[in-house]
Order: sequence, then C-alpha cells, then structure tokens
Amino acid sequence: MHTPGANVAGYVSLFGVQIVLLIIYWIYVRYDDELLPQDSEESSGDATSQDEGLEEKHVPSYPHFQDIHVMIFVGFGFLMTFLRKYGYSATGFTLFLAAIVIQWAILFKGFLHMEHGIIKVSLDSLIDGDISAAVPLISMGALLGRTTPIQLLFMGLVEIAIFALNEYVQLDMLRVTDVGGSITVHAFGAYFGLAVSCILRPSKDDSAAGQHEGPSYTSDMFAMIGTLFLWLFWPSFNSALVDGADQERAIVNTYLALAAATVTTFVLSALVSHGNKLDMVHVQNSTLAGGVAVGSVCNLLIGPHGAILIGIVAGAVSVLGYRYLTPLITEKLRIHDTCGVHNLHGMPAIISAIFSAIYACLATKENYKGTLEHIFPAMMNSTLHSNSTEIVLGGYGRTSMQQGGYQLLSIVLTIVVAVIGGAVTGVVLRAPSVRKLSKDQLHDDEAYWEVPGEKEQ
Amino acid sequence: MHTPGANVAGYVSLFGVQIVLLIIYWIYVRYDDELLPQDSEESSGDATSQDEGLEEKHVPSYPHFQDIHVMIFVGFGFLMTFLRKYGYSATGFTLFLAAIVIQWAILFKGFLHMEHGIIKVSLDSLIDGDISAAVPLISMGALLGRTTPIQLLFMGLVEIAIFALNEYVQLDMLRVTDVGGSITVHAFGAYFGLAVSCILRPSKDDSAAGQHEGPSYTSDMFAMIGTLFLWLFWPSFNSALVDGADQERAIVNTYLALAAATVTTFVLSALVSHGNKLDMVHVQNSTLAGGVAVGSVCNLLIGPHGAILIGIVAGAVSVLGYRYLTPLITEKLRIHDTCGVHNLHGMPAIISAIFSAIYACLATKENYKGTLEHIFPAMMNSTLHSNSTEIVLGGYGRTSMQQGGYQLLSIVLTIVVAVIGGAVTGVVLRAPSVRKLSKDQLHDDEAYWEVPGEKEQ
Amino acid sequence: MHTPGANVAGYVSLFGVQIVLLIIYWIYVRYDDELLPQDSEESSGDATSQDEGLEEKHVPSYPHFQDIHVMIFVGFGFLMTFLRKYGYSATGFTLFLAAIVIQWAILFKGFLHMEHGIIKVSLDSLIDGDISAAVPLISMGALLGRTTPIQLLFMGLVEIAIFALNEYVQLDMLRVTDVGGSITVHAFGAYFGLAVSCILRPSKDDSAAGQHEGPSYTSDMFAMIGTLFLWLFWPSFNSALVDGADQERAIVNTYLALAAATVTTFVLSALVSHGNKLDMVHVQNSTLAGGVAVGSVCNLLIGPHGAILIGIVAGAVSVLGYRYLTPLITEKLRIHDTCGVHNLHGMPAIISAIFSAIYACLATKENYKGTLEHIFPAMMNSTLHSNSTEIVLGGYGRTSMQQGGYQLLSIVLTIVVAVIGGAVTGVVLRAPSVRKLSKDQLHDDEAYWEVPGEKEQ
Repeated sequence: MHTPGANVAGYVSLFGVQIVLLIIYWIYVRYDDELLPQDSEESSGDATSQDEGLEEKHVPSYPHFQDIHVMIFVGFGFLMTFLRKYGYSATGFTLFLAAIVIQWAILFKGFLHMEHGIIKVSLDSLIDGDISAAVPLISMGALLGRTTPIQLLFMGLVEIAIFALNEYVQLDMLRVTDVGGSITVHAFGAYFGLAVSCILRPSKDDSAAGQHEGPSYTSDMFAMIGTLFLWLFWPSFNSALVDGADQERAIVNTYLALAAATVTTFVLSALVSHGNKLDMVHVQNSTLAGGVAVGSVCNLLIGPHGAILIGIVAGAVSVLGYRYLTPLITEKLRIHDTCGVHNLHGMPAIISAIFSAIYACLATKENYKGTLEHIFPAMMNSTLHSNSTEIVLGGYGRTSMQQGGYQLLSIVLTIVVAVIGGAVTGVVLRAPSVRKLSKDQLHDDEAYWEVPGEKEQ
Repeated sequence: MHTPGANVAGYVSLFGVQIVLLIIYWIYVRYDDELLPQDSEESSGDATSQDEGLEEKHVPSYPHFQDIHVMIFVGFGFLMTFLRKYGYSATGFTLFLAAIVIQWAILFKGFLHMEHGIIKVSLDSLIDGDISAAVPLISMGALLGRTTPIQLLFMGLVEIAIFALNEYVQLDMLRVTDVGGSITVHAFGAYFGLAVSCILRPSKDDSAAGQHEGPSYTSDMFAMIGTLFLWLFWPSFNSALVDGADQERAIVNTYLALAAATVTTFVLSALVSHGNKLDMVHVQNSTLAGGVAVGSVCNLLIGPHGAILIGIVAGAVSVLGYRYLTPLITEKLRIHDTCGVHNLHGMPAIISAIFSAIYACLATKENYKGTLEHIFPAMMNSTLHSNSTEIVLGGYGRTSMQQGGYQLLSIVLTIVVAVIGGAVTGVVLRAPSVRKLSKDQLHDDEAYWEVPGEKEQ
Repeated sequence: MHTPGANVAGYVSLFGVQIVLLIIYWIYVRYDDELLPQDSEESSGDATSQDEGLEEKHVPSYPHFQDIHVMIFVGFGFLMTFLRKYGYSATGFTLFLAAIVIQWAILFKGFLHMEHGIIKVSLDSLIDGDISAAVPLISMGALLGRTTPIQLLFMGLVEIAIFALNEYVQLDMLRVTDVGGSITVHAFGAYFGLAVSCILRPSKDDSAAGQHEGPSYTSDMFAMIGTLFLWLFWPSFNSALVDGADQERAIVNTYLALAAATVTTFVLSALVSHGNKLDMVHVQNSTLAGGVAVGSVCNLLIGPHGAILIGIVAGAVSVLGYRYLTPLITEKLRIHDTCGVHNLHGMPAIISAIFSAIYACLATKENYKGTLEHIFPAMMNSTLHSNSTEIVLGGYGRTSMQQGGYQLLSIVLTIVVAVIGGAVTGVVLRAPSVRKLSKDQLHDDEAYWEVPGEKEQ
C-alpha cells in the first residue's frame, strides 16, 4: 500500500506549490512604499539629532512580531511534542506547514486587499502571515499523528483560503471586534480540524488511538517548552493589531486572564483527576485557555477584574472539558482530538465571543470616548470619513445591542463555515487516491522520518 | 497520613484565594489613566505623520517586560528541572506559584501606593509583579523537592507581603540604590528560603537528601534551557527600572559581569572539581552570579572594568561556595539548599551590596552631574522639589559616605527581616495540621503528578 | 597521556586571559558618551511630556540585540546538542567560548576604531561582540567533539583577531556590502573551521568518526530548540546593522528566504534520503541556509520573489551538499565536518556573495535614490562628505559593474584568508605540547565533564 512512488509524487507536488508561489510573487508582489528608498534626505542618514534618528529608524512593531513568531514555531511546535514517539513530526511538520502557509497566506490575503493589481508586503504582512499560520496548526492539533505530511499540507493550503475569506466576512463586512482572533483564528481552526477529524474517523470496530499514543516523561517536558512560550507571549498575540492605550489594555488583560486561568487549572486538575494528582495535559493546555477566552475582548473596557473572571471561567471549562467532554466525544462521536483543541481553542473561543457580545452591549460613547468608532466601526454613523493615512468607510450606525448581536452571529457563522470547510476537506483527504497512514503508523515518527536505532542511549 | 481529603482542602483553599483576589480586584483595581480612552484626537488614529504615530503608539518598555517574563517562567522553571524525577514540579509549580503570586504582588504593592483608595494597573505593574515573583521562586530553589505545593504556595503568599514591606522600607524610606534588586530581591529570597529550610530540617538521625535527589543527563540538559534564558535576559532584569543612559549602562555592565563570571566559573569548576572535570551545577548556576553581584551597582559609574571585576569575584565566590561551603552548611547546620541559592543569590547579593556601598562613597556631583539626585535621592538637599510628572520628596542631605553606610545597613536589615520572616513561616509550615512530604516522596514528581508508567521509552 | 597537571595548566592560562582582559579594559575601555550622565536637564527625568520622554529613554536597538543574543547562546548552543553524548559540551562550551570571545572581540575591534587612545563601549559594541562570537562558533561546528576545550578557546581567540582584520579589509577598505555577514562571518567561520579540521585530521588508517558520533531521539529534539531560535531570529541578525526602510527590507527578505528554504529542504530531504524518509540533519540545518544565502543582499532591492528564489536555491544546495558532497569530502579529503558547516554556512555564503555581485551590477541611482551611496559607499564620487553625526570618507567612484567585481573579490579573499588562518591555527593546535583527545574520547562529554552515572533514569 505504501509505495515510495506515491510518496515522491506528493513531495514533488509540494515543491510545485513552492515554485508556483515563487512565480506569483514575481508577478504580483512588491515591497510596500515604506520599504522603498525615499528621495528625501532622511533616508540617507542625515537626521539632525542622533537620538530622534534612532527612534524613527526602528520598526516599532518588530518586537511584537518576534514574540508571535516564537509562539507559532516554538510554541505550537513544542506544545505538540507531548507524544512520546512523535517529536520530530511535531516540531518538523509545524515548521514545514507554517513555512509554506505563511507564503500562501500573505498572497491570498493580499489578493483580498490588492491596490492597482499589486500586493504590497511589509512587516505587517509577516505578522498577518504568522497569525494565519496559527489556524492550520490548531487544526493539526486535532489530527496530530493521524495524517501524512502531504495530507496535512494540503489541508493547510485549503484551510488558509477559507479562513481568509471568513475573516474578510467577519471583520471587513460584518465588522465584528476580535483583535485577539478568538473567533476568526481559534474557533475557526478548532472546528475546522474537528470536522476533518470526524470525516477521517476509523470504522466503528476500530479504535482511533494508536499503540504509540501517550506521553513519556521526557516528551512531556519538551511540551512544557511550547506551553510556556505560548503562555508568555500570548499578550503579544492579542495586542499585536492594536495601538496605544488599546494595546496596553490588551496586554494587561491577557496577562491577568492567563494568570487566573493557570491557578484555576491547577486547582481543578487536582480536584477532578484520578487520585487528586495533577495532570500534565491540563497544565500544558488549559493554562492557555485564558488567553483564548480573553482574545475578542482584550482591548475592551472589561476591567482587570473582568480579565480575571474570564480567566477563571476559561480555565475551569477547559479542564472539565478534558476530563469529561473529550472522552464522551471520542467514544460517542468517534471524533478523535489528539491535543484536545476543543478544550484549548474551541470552547474558550465561544466563551470569548459571548463575552464580546456582552461587552459590546455595554459600550457607549461615554466610556470609550473617541475610540468607540475605532473599536466598533459599525457603530459609527454612515458617513464617509477620511483621515490622513486611510479612507475609512462609513459605519452602519449600529446600536450597542445590535453590535452584541453581530458578535454572536459572527461566532455561529464562523463555526458553520469551519465545519463545512473542514468536512469537505476531510472528504478529499479520504479519497482512495490519497495515501493514508496505516494503523501501526499512527503517532509514530518512524513512518516518515529516519529515527536513530538505539533510542535514548 | 496522606489522605486525599486533606489534599482537596488545600487546593480548595487556593481556589478560595483566587476568588478573593477576584473580589479585591473588582473593588479596588482600575486601569491606569494611560490605558484609558482619551478624549483627544490622537487616540482615534489621526496622527499627522504616520511614522510619529507608530512610535508613540507602542509601549516602549514592553520588550523589556517580555524578557523578564521569559526569565521568571522559562528561566526559573527550567533551571530547577535539573533533578531527574522532578521536572513536572519544577516547571509546573513555578508556573502555578508565579501565576498566583503576580496577582497578589500587584495588589499588595498597590496598597502601599494607593491613590484615592484605588490601585491603578499598567504595564509597569506587570513588570513589578514579575520581579516580585522572582522572590518566592528563589526561596523555592532552596526547598526544591521537599515541600508540598500547598506549603509552597502558602509560603509564597506570606513571603510576598514581607518582601513588599521590606522593599518599601529600603527603597522608599532608607532610599538605598538597588535597581537590579540584588538586596531587596535576591538576598531577601535566598535568606528567607534558607530560614524556612532550616526550620523544616529533618531530625538529626535523618538525612535530608532523598533517594531521588540528583540529576540525569537529560534533566541536566533541560536545566541548561533555564540557565541560558536567565543569562541572556539578565541585562533586561537589571535595567528594566531605569531609563536612558542609566539603562544602557546597566545593560552593558550586566553583560560584561556575566561574561566574566562565566569564564571564571568554568576555570574554577575545572580546578576545584573531582578529577578536574567540569561540574554542571557550577555551569548552570555560578555563571549567573555575575548578574546578581552587579545588580545593585549596574547603573552606577563602575566602568566596564568594574563590571568585569565584579563578575570575576562573583563567579569565584559562587563556585567555591558550591564546592566547599554548601557541604559544610548541609552537614553542620543541617540546612538543605537543593539548588544552592546561597551560592547563586545569597553571597553574590552581599557582594553587590558591598560594592554598592563602595561606589556610593565615590559618588560626587562632578561625575554623576544632574543624575546624582536621581540615582541617590537621599543625597539631595532637604527641599521639596517638583517636576512635571511627579512630586519628588526632598532628600535627606546625606553625604557620599553616609549613603555608603546606608547601603550596608540595607543588606543587613534585609537579611534580618528575611531570616525572621522565613523562620516564622517555617514554623507555620511545620505545624502538625499541615500535610508534609514523607521521606520517599522527596524530589519525586509522583507524589503530586500523574507520571507516565514507562518512562523514557 | 592525560595527566591532570596539563589540564590545570590550560585552565589556568584561560584564567590568565580573563585577568589580562580585565587589565586592558581598565586601561583602555570607557563608556561611550551616550552612556554617561549629561549636564542637560533631560537626563534628570524632567521631560516635558511623559510620552516623549519614555520614547527617548529606551534604547531602540535593544530588542534586536536580544534576538541575536538568543541566537548565539541558545541557537548555536542547542543546535550542536544533536550528538547523543555531547550535550553538556555543546551548550557549555558554546557559553564558555562565547563569554570569553565577546570580551576579546569588543576589545580587538575597538583597537581598530580607537579615538584618542580610548575604546568606547555601548550597546552597539555588545551587538558587535555577539556577531563576532558567531564566527568561532561556526568553526566549532566543523570540529565538534574532536577538540579539547582549551584547543577550542585558543582557536577562538586567534580566529577573532584574523576575522576582525579581514572584516576591516572587506568593509572599511574594499567597501563591499554585506549587512548580514554572509561573507565576513559565515564564509570566514566555515572555511576557517574546515581548514583547522583538515590539519587536525587523523592518520590515513584511522577513521575520524568516534564510536559516539550520531544522535539519539532526545538529543535530536534538543537540537530543534537551537534550530528554531536561529530560524526565528535570523531576520534580526541580518537587519541589526541597518536602519529604517533598509531594515524592514532586510527583515522581510530574510523571512521569505527562510520560508522558501524550509519548504525546499523538506521536499528534497524526502526525495534524496534513504527510503524517502525525512532526515533530521537536513531539517536542523538546511532550513537555515536561506538566512545565510540572503545575508549579503537582504537590504538590497531583490524583491520578495528574489528572496524566495534565493531561499529555494540555498535549501537545495544545502540538502544536496549534506547528501552527496559531505561524504565525499570526508572520504576523499578526510576533512571531518561534524555539523556540516560547509552545507549550512560555507556554500550558502558563496551563493550570497554571487547574488550580491549580481545585484550590485543592477544598482542604479534611479532605483536606490538617495540611499545608493549609503548602501554602496564606494560608488560615491571621491569627495569628502560630512554630516552631523559622522564624517564619511569620499567614495571611490566605482561603477555598478566594478562594485559587482569587488563583491566577488571579497568572497575569494575572505576564503583565502580563512583557509590560511585556519591552517596555521591548526598547526599550532597539533603541536606535540598541546593535549589532544584520544580516540575513545571523541564526541563524549565524559572526557571533560562529570556525567551522572545512571543516565536517563
């Protein structure tokens, strides 16, 4: 069944994708103006004051970008190393998938915002590319160890396109607020992956769990590297797309929500686990649920206590989900969710959307002052408004209650799109012509990697 | 002796602490003004020049904060993974303890600086919270593997309160200089932990070392992750609370002191160790002693050579401490110090205080110019002085020599407070009603964690 | 053969080096003016506006510095942990070597740019020191596991001096463009190391491979930590020494080149490897080749597609080099290259130089506008030109084609200097009086470290 030939064909097509990307970039993609040499004298280094010069010359969002960059590649990559024989694949396929997906996401999102037939790239494009890469990596978590790399990369390419379209609908057309991407990134990635997993589920007689599923002591330690870098840089993820006071609020709220979710995770893990012992799965994942659950509201006026409250709720829901809901879903629906993305991304994202609806209903011109129309642009009056850097389309004149309704609509719509998109993708991945893993290859690096003979010596 | 019931009670009380924190935040804590929407037009994004706008809108100390954030959770967490069966606890309890302690520290330090009955939080509060978390984590290093998580968290909550009060006395009342926290953070944390360890010491006939104490090859590698991130970001820790030229001086001095301490550590480790082989304990810990020893003086005019000299002294004292002093303390005083915090934090902090006294004595208006009264506010004349951003209380008109004396007083006082505070805390932790680890549970994750059956496969 | 005495002598001399460094710093090194207290009122904190004040007070290149700092110590350190019994040495000797070399590089490069007999240090010196440290670390990769630490440190000290002189010739005299250091850092480090390795090669009958050479599953996972942090922060390395639009271009180009090299690496690794399985050596190393190959041109107008093209070429050349060229070099020339630095640094650096020649030929005043003379100062007219911050020497009036020729001359000259320098260094390291590793000590931590008896338990 597993002839080398088919394998080669898959890899060759991926290389074809890379070459096609190169050609499209050659035709359509150019540096943004801020990356081009300017005629003015500033660019040749004659700043009048050295200090000012230095300030101006550094790209201010670069540290934020680098934090997110670490989250995507080290955070996601190592978080998924918890399986004892799947560490090469966890870190390697994360790198492979993200490397191709970021190029594709910059392009596809660029097509949605083209100017004069040209896609312009800058540091902001890289931030966009990295955030987009999170989406298929979340889905990969649901499927971890049960797909070939070719299946994974095909899924990633399709998923990015559907994600970008859905994001465009939610943010540019429905104008919901979601600066941390809980709705558009986390809910989408989780339910897309679960839908794929549902379609790929084994026949009734067969268990989805391979013999190699499960952690070792060392693999659990590697996973903590992923957990910690995700936990630490989550405030950067949630605050990357906002500025000034909004940004600092997003940072403070995310920090507090994560701290509260972490305390709640440890306490509940001990209370609900077998023999009251702590469970590393909870520690590795549920501690992060606070970051997801605060995502859509992190720049709103939720107050420090609001952030802590959301963190407590998210940590509790996540641990209880791992303990009680996931076994049910696996048994009854036979949907396998290797990393438990439903508990880390899915449910916390729904929580975030609900809170975003509540806080949208509470938003007034009095408390948000001049920033209201910036945060909730659909609540502006429907006049055309322009400023020096961009033309802002007129709002829809929504009331607070209406905006709240749209926030709920947004999560429902996103889940529907994700489930349908994932299901269709799953059907393609199950096609007879697509190579699949045999049962003994599940959760095992040896299926696709050269592995040293005498391990651990 | 270890009934699940008692365990549950402990965790439930911790959850109670989290709920109490939520309530107190709800009542007393609000966003700082810089996090609130402004009425001015700037905040709605209409900056006249895009470039300027971007500059203004990014929180300038955020990269510094993130470096410290990595130090606390990845640095401390992984540094303590060197024990071969205690990696889950090292990373997990660091995360748990720090997550609860940062919320509590922001609150407690906030009460000491309340305005109109309200505690205001901003990014600076998070930096404060993270630096405070270092204190109980240092103490945890002394006790590593010999307490239950409930004992640890109780200690952390008490310790933060005493630490914050002592810091208030040293910095706000005695007005000593200590920008890197060597006196208030490192010395305090180390001697508090050692005092707790002294009270918790086993009876004379019993050895404190569990059968599981000691590293494995893999656990030593994980510990190097912690060492390296602490080593790399230490300049950020020491320079986070100063600005401009002071900050750059703190960065350069800390970098040089760490480099010199590292070279000294390797050389001395080979010279004093058995068979002239290098000892990973020294490499993991003594290389960092330079960062502690330069902490109180890193923003002073110590010169690049001064930084290197301090690094050499600190590395040497630390390695010799591990090799000769720690065995003595363990045998004679029966004070167990699992990570050797006395050699990494205790003695280097005393060195730092001594150097701070020396350099304070050398401080003059001539070399420090206008920054003298900023660095040594007690050396100002006792007039009330105000500037645009804050009201600075008048100085005490101290001479350089007097300031030097106060620097020495500060370290003595801090150690006295830490030892008394730690001893009292230790007595509480030893109370008959408090659950303790049995001898075979020492340094073993299995006491509190679900551990995979077949390790390392 | 291995008497403790000789060992001790080596370590004592290294301590002597540290003491000599201390003395030279004491005599010649001072803080740069921007680190000194100013008489103006700004420095005492009375900025008129708090926001502006904060902006001004933070050192803008500090985040860039910290990224590079992580690359040197965590990136290089962990990348070299792939050998199963050499992890202590990989991380430890990286730390040791870099700690002494950064002090020495700051000094030596300072001597080349002295003012009034004084070397001034600032954050820029630390960036310089860290980048310089990469050079001997690259060479260490070629020799990994086959030298004593004393041999390694001696090599590092000599290599830094030759590197700094060569860099001075290339950048200050020949005025080639090489902002990412592909020519001066990567090519130099690789060919210097290979030359040393050639001289140290074993006699014909003997194989250079020790019995311990080769990875374990766990050691390969540790190496991925190094790979990922190098991969993530490479845009910072390449963009650290340029500003503004140049900097953002360097960031975007490096990001895209790395992504394309990564996809190419995975595809080719599967296609050329035994049984079409992925090879961790390729994933750990060739994914990074894109960063090297784009180094010399990353700030030029190569276009996003140019960056992707260079990445594809570099990834392909690197994988093919590991698969086909390295075995040839090892067998025929008996030059051992433990980490394959020829494939990661050597050949990609040559590719970078060739591309830099091509793009230099295409450079015109029309496309580079006012920045042409900044990027290619030798293409300016030969008049003396001064601006407010520095005096720029007149250019040589080169044409584009001439500049392209100089770029090629630069890589040839650099390789010649590196090979001669490495060969001479190798002869010294082979001297009868120098202690060497015996065959059974190759690639084994136990030769120089205390290693826990029962590993991996």
